[in-house]
Amino acid sequence: MIRAGIIGGAGYTGGELIRILINHPEVELAFVHSRSQAGLPVSELHPDLIGECQLKFTDVAQFDVEVLFLCMGHGESGKFLAENNLPDKMLVIDLSHDFRWAPGFTYGLPELQRETIAHSRRIANPGCFATAIQLGLLPLAKAQALQDEVHVHAITGSTGAGQSLTATSHYSWRHNNLSVYKPFQHQHLAEIGQSLLHLQPGFAHALNFIPLRGSFTRGIFASLYTYTEMSEPELIQLYQDYYQDHPFVFISPNNPDLKQVVNTNKAILYLEKHGDKVLIISLIDNLLKGASGQAVQNMNLALGLKETAGLGLKAMAF
Amino acid sequence: MIRAGIIGGAGYTGGELIRILINHPEVELAFVHSRSQAGLPVSELHPDLIGECQLKFTDVAQFDVEVLFLCMGHGESGKFLAENNLPDKMLVIDLSHDFRWAPGFTYGLPELQRETIAHSRRIANPGCFATAIQLGLLPLAKAQALQDEVHVHAITGSTGAGQSLTATSHYSWRHNNLSVYKPFQHQHLAEIGQSLLHLQPGFAHALNFIPLRGSFTRGIFASLYTYTEMSEPELIQLYQDYYQDHPFVFISPNNPDLKQVVNTNKAILYLEKHGDKVLIISLIDNLLKGASGQAVQNMNLALGLKETAGLGLKAMAF
Amino acid sequence: MIRAGIIGGAGYTGGELIRILINHPEVELAFVHSRSQAGLPVSELHPDLIGECQLKFTDVAQFDVEVLFLCMGHGESGKFLAENNLPDKMLVIDLSHDFRWAPGFTYGLPELQRETIAHSRRIANPGCFATAIQLGLLPLAKAQALQDEVHVHAITGSTGAGQSLTATSHYSWRHNNLSVYKPFQHQHLAEIGQSLLHLQPGFAHALNFIPLRGSFTRGIFASLYTYTEMSEPELIQLYQDYYQDHPFVFISPNNPDLKQVVNTNKAILYLEKHGDKVLIISLIDNLLKGASGQAVQNMNLALGLKETAGLGLKAMAF
Amino acid sequence: MIRAGIIGGAGYTGGELIRILINHPEVELAFVHSRSQAGLPVSELHPDLIGECQLKFTDVAQFDVEVLFLCMGHGESGKFLAENNLPDKMLVIDLSHDFRWAPGFTYGLPELQRETIAHSRRIANPGCFATAIQLGLLPLAKAQALQDEVHVHAITGSTGAGQSLTATSHYSWRHNNLSVYKPFQHQHLAEIGQSLLHLQPGFAHALNFIPLRGSFTRGIFASLYTYTEMSEPELIQLYQDYYQDHPFVFISPNNPDLKQVVNTNKAILYLEKHGDKVLIISLIDNLLKGASGQAVQNMNLALGLKETAGLGLKAMAF
Repeated sequence: MIRAGIIGGAGYTGGELIRILINHPEVELAFVHSRSQAGLPVSELHPDLIGECQLKFTDVAQFDVEVLFLCMGHGESGKFLAENNLPDKMLVIDLSHDFRWAPGFTYGLPELQRETIAHSRRIANPGCFATAIQLGLLPLAKAQALQDEVHVHAITGSTGAGQSLTATSHYSWRHNNLSVYKPFQHQHLAEIGQSLLHLQPGFAHALNFIPLRGSFTRGIFASLYTYTEMSEPELIQLYQDYYQDHPFVFISPNNPDLKQVVNTNKAILYLEKHGDKVLIISLIDNLLKGASGQAVQNMNLALGLKETAGLGLKAMAF
Repeated sequence: MIRAGIIGGAGYTGGELIRILINHPEVELAFVHSRSQAGLPVSELHPDLIGECQLKFTDVAQFDVEVLFLCMGHGESGKFLAENNLPDKMLVIDLSHDFRWAPGFTYGLPELQRETIAHSRRIANPGCFATAIQLGLLPLAKAQALQDEVHVHAITGSTGAGQSLTATSHYSWRHNNLSVYKPFQHQHLAEIGQSLLHLQPGFAHALNFIPLRGSFTRGIFASLYTYTEMSEPELIQLYQDYYQDHPFVFISPNNPDLKQVVNTNKAILYLEKHGDKVLIISLIDNLLKGASGQAVQNMNLALGLKETAGLGLKAMAF
Repeated sequence: MIRAGIIGGAGYTGGELIRILINHPEVELAFVHSRSQAGLPVSELHPDLIGECQLKFTDVAQFDVEVLFLCMGHGESGKFLAENNLPDKMLVIDLSHDFRWAPGFTYGLPELQRETIAHSRRIANPGCFATAIQLGLLPLAKAQALQDEVHVHAITGSTGAGQSLTATSHYSWRHNNLSVYKPFQHQHLAEIGQSLLHLQPGFAHALNFIPLRGSFTRGIFASLYTYTEMSEPELIQLYQDYYQDHPFVFISPNNPDLKQVVNTNKAILYLEKHGDKVLIISLIDNLLKGASGQAVQNMNLALGLKETAGLGLKAMAF
Repeated sequence: MIRAGIIGGAGYTGGELIRILINHPEVELAFVHSRSQAGLPVSELHPDLIGECQLKFTDVAQFDVEVLFLCMGHGESGKFLAENNLPDKMLVIDLSHDFRWAPGFTYGLPELQRETIAHSRRIANPGCFATAIQLGLLPLAKAQALQDEVHVHAITGSTGAGQSLTATSHYSWRHNNLSVYKPFQHQHLAEIGQSLLHLQPGFAHALNFIPLRGSFTRGIFASLYTYTEMSEPELIQLYQDYYQDHPFVFISPNNPDLKQVVNTNKAILYLEKHGDKVLIISLIDNLLKGASGQAVQNMNLALGLKETAGLGLKAMAF
């Protein structure tokens, strides 16, 4: 069994990682670190884990593991790595945005660069919006077929904002509500742009991105469109070819809905041509394919396990 | 026009009072007090009021008003009244639980004691659960017909817990969720018990009360049952007679649902006899009949206005 | 009192009209017609109306009214008018899309053509999406300032789809879900296009419209953006000037959220300039400003009443 | 691999069974029968299964399987068994209420009679409410300690009502709503009563049961209380002893919330003593421990597999 540790296990992505790893056939969860919760049984803070996890949170980071997941707040991973001299051969997967496309780290989007990930020991896990949007655009970029501005509108569940208590996470405010935030300037635009340039050097069109807060807890619903000269059958073929051997991305033959992916590591894509524009719908669960599920997918790749190990998750469906 | 002031206008009940009073045909809202928000336009904190309220929050309590609503946190009203020497003839309506059934204050449940309220200048507005439960029991108590334990299960919307940020008000936690709190010992049991004793002296049976947090923002759904020798027609007649001239309480001929009362000052009651037990369903909007709407109803009574003035609110319905 | 009748009062817009009209200071609701529910008390089908409406549904259409609202399904209004010879002087307000921009009918968007409406006796009430989107674009169109394609995403509550039972209106499916429908080809594009041409003749750019089904019951959240040479202050001034004397449209100084308008007849607009694009957020309640509230606003104008009469509705807020 | 078939795979419980069985390590799903959907790919009707299930619905019931799950509507299972002469040695698990506590069938509540189930070939899967309520009472009944009436309130998610379109399953109605149905007379009372009599012969007190429809899709939240002479520590010990070797039932040390069990096969129980009454909270996912998960648990037992095989489901948590 591969020994795994989690730094920052009290938050949403940390909890979700624990939920996955305790059922992972090849992994033993060695410790869960949390400064704020040290000493508390993990199943008391994440009470759905009752009967499934006997660990207590520890504030001693242990390094006798083969894989270490960093689930701290943005900015904290950098500090942690500066303060702790981790062995080079230890696999470190960082879920913050501190090291995305940074030197020394591999950007961990398997559908972009699975081979590179498989040989990396420092992996920066992509952002949730970034994952949904990139999966919707990678085939076009690889085909050098992004010819114009891209228009993106994406709605996220509340867990994307983490567990800190804020005005926009208050139930009485958020329930039945919708709001836009960071229009045209969401921080994930940077990593998306780098990935697109990676595949289509010289890509210089605008990526117009309107993010919204939705009244649900899990999921990202992204709808994208752009000008293209390709026909609908050509586009569908392009996407099917691109994702053919990627086990978590599916081209839906029918117009999909968000709950098809909730509680799974899947991404579902759907394409429709209207006039000279292609509409691309891209759906993920922000905590799974958008965070902790993708982190495990990256671990599987980097450790030579089956890419889908531990990720056969039953969809919520309803 | 009657001049009204609000102390503590930044919270949920304060905001709801403003929403009612700006449309009240006989009232002019003179000021809204808030220590924390002084100087801010009211419509910036309560942004649904855009275009409807030009006031700014003030931290100077003004006493040149005929009615003063206290919408502060529990415990704060007592302090405020101790520190401020309010004229006896000023109508003071306190929405906290500081003075419910306290000497010098009239317990402001119009369906219990409308005449007393009409002659009071110090009114303690009932709690939201307390209102729903009492309305379900008053006719039986008045008829000296509470013969046994009463079983109460009531589910509240999130606004009942106010706007402070807590773990149980976090959207990611509360959405789609349910939980019990303070079973058998909710603080509203005290005021309910006093009202029942007021009508049925010697009442000494248990009131078993299980309160729950529901995943909606507004409303209280209370279901009560108790042993009774009365038949269903007798019970319905008893309730219809009791509430006949009370303009906000209705005996529904059909099994009701919560949204019939949401965004209104109504209470809807429904009765069914099963074996030797009567089931009583009692529904209110916790912020209206359970708080700010009832406060305005009390004001109307105490100032000799029409009881329903300003309270013809359109139901949400959906 | 003005006598009003409703044809098709069993549906959502019919019910909402009843809720408004029973509290309207100048209107008496003379009858509510419904073929399917004839004989049933109105308050039994719309049970939130208990105690507020004593009418029963009738299947006899009566024409001794000054205003008649047609709330039937799309296609039914045409049939009704063909079969019934209504007096020319009777005000007829049709909520279906049968007569929008049709000869003999005035398109009833007061913010577009209030004067024309005031002199009309046949008014076609706009669609809900159409209202939200047009309000977001009218000032630009009037200024001949729509210079490029417009990009629109809009999310609607479930009541927009009416009360018929369909797979996408099933609670188990829709709750926590999102889906796109009729992308680039929603039927409201026609009426929007005609209004824009009315103000900016020759407008020939694409209006790209992605409609979504949201997991809430009431409201439309539309976000629009387009290229513009105007600065943010110029844009805000343009919109403030345009809507200055329109009592239901507000330019919010802050980024708004949907619940500010829910259960009101308001529209809230918000503008932000990003690079060379302006983002316009436009919010309405689909059943009120998007349907029955706007119908009453049109009635008020056509009958010379105050435009806001009966429409001072308390926001849901939470 | 054990070959399994499903009769009636187009509904909610059928779909959920498929989701579980495709990931079950010992089972091969041989066919999914549906008269209404014959010929359609299973993943088109249950679109979350995209990429996970290549079967098409068939209208030919095949009997070359070791286990057959009947997921038809109530009343249909009886007809099916009358029309089809199934081999005695085939394991048949019926999810309807046709055969609960019926002769020839074992009532499939593993926590009541695991040994009997292990030797049965005809199993009647319990109802969802019945499961939640029985799990809350079995230890008391076994200890002959049910001494008085039991008071039960239980709130169910919408999937409990199946996928047929009804007024109470319409999103616009159910969202944010609550309602009582079948108070004191829910059909599950029969099977609960028989189980209690099975453990505590002579039990003759009333089981007062108020079922409610909640505004969420998955889960049952049951709160029960009854008079008892036992102390809280004695009660907790009693429950811990009873469920010690039952892998899906947990006694929570803390007051639990519904989402701890959603999307799992767990039941979580919680006990608190107040005066002379014990409050018991019992939580399950109605589609899993309340239906399809329990069916698989029964299959595991009857086929000699590990009781938890295929049921290590990641909780939704949020």
